[in-house]
Amino acid sequence: MFAACLVKRLSLYRRVLGALASPEGWAGGLGSSDGEYVFSHDLASLAGVSAAQVRRDVMTIGYTGSPRRGYDVAGLIGRIGEFLDAPGGQSAVLVGLGHLGKAVLAYVGGRRTGLRIVAGFDVDPAKCGRVIHGCRCHGMEALAEVIAEHGANVGLVAVPGAEAQNVSIQLVRAGVRGLLNFAPVRLQVPEYVFVEDVDITVSLESVAFFARHDAVRRQAMIKEAVR
Amino acid sequence: MFAACLVKRLSLYRRVLGALASPEGWAGGLGSSDGEYVFSHDLASLAGVSAAQVRRDVMTIGYTGSPRRGYDVAGLIGRIGEFLDAPGGQSAVLVGLGHLGKAVLAYVGGRRTGLRIVAGFDVDPAKCGRVIHGCRCHGMEALAEVIAEHGANVGLVAVPGAEAQNVSIQLVRAGVRGLLNFAPVRLQVPEYVFVEDVDITVSLESVAFFARHDAVRRQAMIKEAVR
Repeated sequence: MFAACLVKRLSLYRRVLGALASPEGWAGGLGSSDGEYVFSHDLASLAGVSAAQVRRDVMTIGYTGSPRRGYDVAGLIGRIGEFLDAPGGQSAVLVGLGHLGKAVLAYVGGRRTGLRIVAGFDVDPAKCGRVIHGCRCHGMEALAEVIAEHGANVGLVAVPGAEAQNVSIQLVRAGVRGLLNFAPVRLQVPEYVFVEDVDITVSLESVAFFARHDAVRRQAMIKEAVR
Repeated sequence: MFAACLVKRLSLYRRVLGALASPEGWAGGLGSSDGEYVFSHDLASLAGVSAAQVRRDVMTIGYTGSPRRGYDVAGLIGRIGEFLDAPGGQSAVLVGLGHLGKAVLAYVGGRRTGLRIVAGFDVDPAKCGRVIHGCRCHGMEALAEVIAEHGANVGLVAVPGAEAQNVSIQLVRAGVRGLLNFAPVRLQVPEYVFVEDVDITVSLESVAFFARHDAVRRQAMIKEAVR
């Protein structure tokens, strides 16, 4: 039984560890890691959690480090992968090939992970049949068939807000059980579907707002927020 | 004194309202809105909050609706803009012009908002002097000068994890006061800097993980998470 936050932390640890293990090394000045081994407190500091949390999480997935040298970086990356990734890889589809959809295709397609975006969909006939960033694009009428063919169970929703609910229902009917939603609405889907919202515009607008307000006011705002 | 969550909700309301007011209308079946007026409970349902929350938030920014017709959509969009946006527009810079950075440029550049990405930066000399998605790109050595020239106070960090901390410090030294961080590390910056993390990979990996686990297990996981 694993909590969503554990899964996210493990995903983050893996990315941090990947950077540590990369040939370019770590430019941020992580003194005590040699790229082969890392201490829980160093991994914790890079991931923004406590060292105790890191140790607990690593224990949960059945990995152990050495008190003297810390965790073996490659070994821990491997163990996280065994826990997080589908053994034979996993397929996702993306709906909505506007600016954002294409951007996500380029970004996700550029990373080598166990999860692959196998098809894109759009209502615009001009986009059907094209290959965008290595991904074959189809009209919406092919959705159910293509999802079944690839056994895709993950859907990325990058359509305008007004269409997102409708598209999500179509994805769920076709067998999708996890949705990454970039549209600016909260989706209403059956309980057995996992939804995660990513709203770049909302995040950017809040950064812009608070960048204009000085530290004193911001402190008061934070107080307000935690009240 | 405004909480970060209020700012995010207002940004989300504006996007939902924008979709309601668009010529294509709302395909999701929002019966009681005619595109000109919307009731607090309809806006609430689309934004995934309670109607009482919507009414409180709208009252906070000094706007009122009519009990019979609801809120005037265009009027509320306008009032949210007065609250959220800098009167003369606001400038941001983006560091890191890899897949993700270019994707973000395309996406944010394609939206017409008060916030504009005025410059991009990268360590790769091949990218300097180029215009990518309408945005002029420079080497890192020009960072402080370009930021000062535009009075930019927002920075988007799209560099690899190992470089994000170093880049953030450079941005803050040059006058940036809000950071949107796409890199997979938690940034350590002075208290007066506002940081928001967006991690598409972590979100996608957690969606993929939970898409593979059935409803029964997921319920148990959620219980675990809220314990």
